[in-house]
Amino acid sequence: MNVRNPRTGEFDYEIFPLSLEELESKIYELRQAQDEWQNQTLDFRIETLRAWKNTLEEQKELLIEALTIDTGRNLETQIEVDFLLNSIDQWCDLAKIFFEKPVLGVSSITSLNKEVQFVPYRVIGIVSPSTFPLFYAVLDTIPALLSGCSVIVKPSELTPRFTEVLINSFAELPQMIEVLSFTHGDAETVIGLTKLCDKICFTGAKNSAKDILNVANESLNPVDLELGGKNIAIVTESAEIERATSAIVWGCAFNAGQSCNSIESIYVHRNIYHQFLSRLVGKANLLEYTFPNVENGQIGPIIAEKQVEKINELLADAINKGAIIKAGGRECEILGGGNYCRPTVLINVTPSMKLLKEEHLAPLLPVITFFNADEIAQVNELSFEDSVAIFAGSNDEALQISEKINVKRLTINDIAINSLLPEVNAERFNKFLKQKTLLINNQQEKSNWWY
Amino acid sequence: MNVRNPRTGEFDYEIFPLSLEELESKIYELRQAQDEWQNQTLDFRIETLRAWKNTLEEQKELLIEALTIDTGRNLETQIEVDFLLNSIDQWCDLAKIFFEKPVLGVSSITSLNKEVQFVPYRVIGIVSPSTFPLFYAVLDTIPALLSGCSVIVKPSELTPRFTEVLINSFAELPQMIEVLSFTHGDAETVIGLTKLCDKICFTGAKNSAKDILNVANESLNPVDLELGGKNIAIVTESAEIERATSAIVWGCAFNAGQSCNSIESIYVHRNIYHQFLSRLVGKANLLEYTFPNVENGQIGPIIAEKQVEKINELLADAINKGAIIKAGGRECEILGGGNYCRPTVLINVTPSMKLLKEEHLAPLLPVITFFNADEIAQVNELSFEDSVAIFAGSNDEALQISEKINVKRLTINDIAINSLLPEVNAERFNKFLKQKTLLINNQQEKSNWWY
Repeated sequence: MNVRNPRTGEFDYEIFPLSLEELESKIYELRQAQDEWQNQTLDFRIETLRAWKNTLEEQKELLIEALTIDTGRNLETQIEVDFLLNSIDQWCDLAKIFFEKPVLGVSSITSLNKEVQFVPYRVIGIVSPSTFPLFYAVLDTIPALLSGCSVIVKPSELTPRFTEVLINSFAELPQMIEVLSFTHGDAETVIGLTKLCDKICFTGAKNSAKDILNVANESLNPVDLELGGKNIAIVTESAEIERATSAIVWGCAFNAGQSCNSIESIYVHRNIYHQFLSRLVGKANLLEYTFPNVENGQIGPIIAEKQVEKINELLADAINKGAIIKAGGRECEILGGGNYCRPTVLINVTPSMKLLKEEHLAPLLPVITFFNADEIAQVNELSFEDSVAIFAGSNDEALQISEKINVKRLTINDIAINSLLPEVNAERFNKFLKQKTLLINNQQEKSNWWY
Repeated sequence: MNVRNPRTGEFDYEIFPLSLEELESKIYELRQAQDEWQNQTLDFRIETLRAWKNTLEEQKELLIEALTIDTGRNLETQIEVDFLLNSIDQWCDLAKIFFEKPVLGVSSITSLNKEVQFVPYRVIGIVSPSTFPLFYAVLDTIPALLSGCSVIVKPSELTPRFTEVLINSFAELPQMIEVLSFTHGDAETVIGLTKLCDKICFTGAKNSAKDILNVANESLNPVDLELGGKNIAIVTESAEIERATSAIVWGCAFNAGQSCNSIESIYVHRNIYHQFLSRLVGKANLLEYTFPNVENGQIGPIIAEKQVEKINELLADAINKGAIIKAGGRECEILGGGNYCRPTVLINVTPSMKLLKEEHLAPLLPVITFFNADEIAQVNELSFEDSVAIFAGSNDEALQISEKINVKRLTINDIAINSLLPEVNAERFNKFLKQKTLLINNQQEKSNWWY
């Protein structure tokens, strides 16, 4: 399977997916090794993870190098690697707290000895996207390993180069080799993993998620999905405009908008609209491509080639329906073989335009005005999967608006959440544990309802 | 929709499923009312549930009467009602503990104020089976209501009569009427609920589960499944035979074996086989039908008419392949219009027989001998959904065997677990809560990575 270089458009790397038989035998081995890994102490697993962190740190430059080729950008790649390294320590610290918490349970028959245990799934399959390829490949891997699971990861076939460095980083940690594995491949490999693993964790697009669910329906294996949404920013009349525009341009354009957590549209109060727009356009225009020099600039190439067509289509649709471009261009451009999209500010945006409904995954900044927050809910049917960033003069004002909005993530005067911030949260361990109940009856007498 | 009486075979009751439009408007109302319910204090919700318990207690006799017609048995119905009533208090007590536990989480950017909240799903749909119709209709309802969700329950269309009493039991509790609703119907209603509710909790058979999952794939709404398994009992050489046989006959024959948690096969050590068999047969033969007098006897009618054919088919298959009947008959019998199945002990059972692989949901007791526990795993490919009851002379011996068995529920010298015992467990609240993250940035300075 040939892999395209997003900067040059050339297919300059090759990956070799495992056959279904190879996948089967790999997962069999992982399942066998999981027993011993689970029976080790938590401290042993923490030590192993920390040892991994050390070798990752030693090989940091190699990792950044490979990831930079995968994504066509350098600055964000450095941040990505640093976040990952920090998160390993945080997960280890949280594991100590989480796995020591008592389990609550009662037995209706008080003389019985009832215990609820949490046992790890044996093999977790992780399917990760091309947005922040390293971070999402490893985000679930760390808590899953700490929980005592074996893990097999399939990184995106669009950005696979970093995997080699990652595999080398634990080549000297025999206990890790046995319980952590990587495989390349496409949709077919994903189907194989869904059939063979004990649980699948998927981060990515809704359509691929449905393919996984269709397979999982047959096996009844559990599936955990982290999907993108139509995330929005809201700027109230009292917001600090300098702050809001800096944060929002970043929220829309970091990772060239390709992250499922990017801001996809901006709602701004009519009374500050002109001021806001002028600063937004000014800041958007300051951003530069990571071309020709990969170490400069903020806006990397669009990694998925098929996304380019989609972006151009959404822009054309909006322009046809009356949208006006205030910054950026009318379509993506090709430079040195790579596809790039300028941060593109659109006004005169109406609900009929497709880019308000469909995920554009691009640095597009459609601006919509409002007078009161109720209008926003009308224009934008928010679902719980979406996230909202509110910029306001006071937390109270923002919280009041947020009460009308039923979303998974809410940020006040910031964008950071769920984008580059790893969600290090003890509750996440629950994903990797199954509840097992043990009941021991130590009484001599038979229960009086037995026959 | 006409409902069959399992004792008489007559269709003597009618239910009126809501149309899809009615269902839609019902769920809309429940969603609207949920807001206020969620914003009430936990204490208010606990008080409401306790008030419900009181009226349920007052109407206990009516409830038992209706349920007795639904199931064609009286003794087990009384136990069912008592368990339910007790569990309400237990849930209320656990809610106090659960909802006060601190949430663990860290932000990588320490100056940010990050909070993880758990918010209830707005409308939970509960689809419950005909085995212990009341218990399973209400098991998830109680913690869901305590969590702050609205709930709509669809009880099995085979056993709907108790619903009327249940609805009357909170007719005087206005705060409850708004957030708890019942609807009748069949597979079509289940599909409607899956589309319209924010989460579906299903207890029942694997085939129906797949229908639900197929619908949920489209909406990507979360689904929680509690499915049956091929549960087994293991009796070691050192087990106390009197105790084991009493418990196992009960585990196989309570609820006429129709519970998804019934014991479906028995593995007994070869050295005690003859003694064990003789006591098992003796005790099985003592059991009586709840016919002609519903207040006598332990073995009620087979509720689902189509199950009768299945049981007869499995028995015929086993007999054809060489099984010998030591107690019970070669097929179900019809008495007064109802279908009954005697506790049926089978020996000379081999792995080729269908009744070892397919859920029989009947009081069939196939006995298989073994010399060491490894053989059991070979005969019976256990999945994590199954449960195992081990009878042994010591807990250590049982625990040693259990280590070879990867199951969800393990019982030592008892059968009770997961059958009549309500699984009152604080972790169950997690099913009804979504994680919501709130991040507030109170710093004056802009973050240095913003544009």
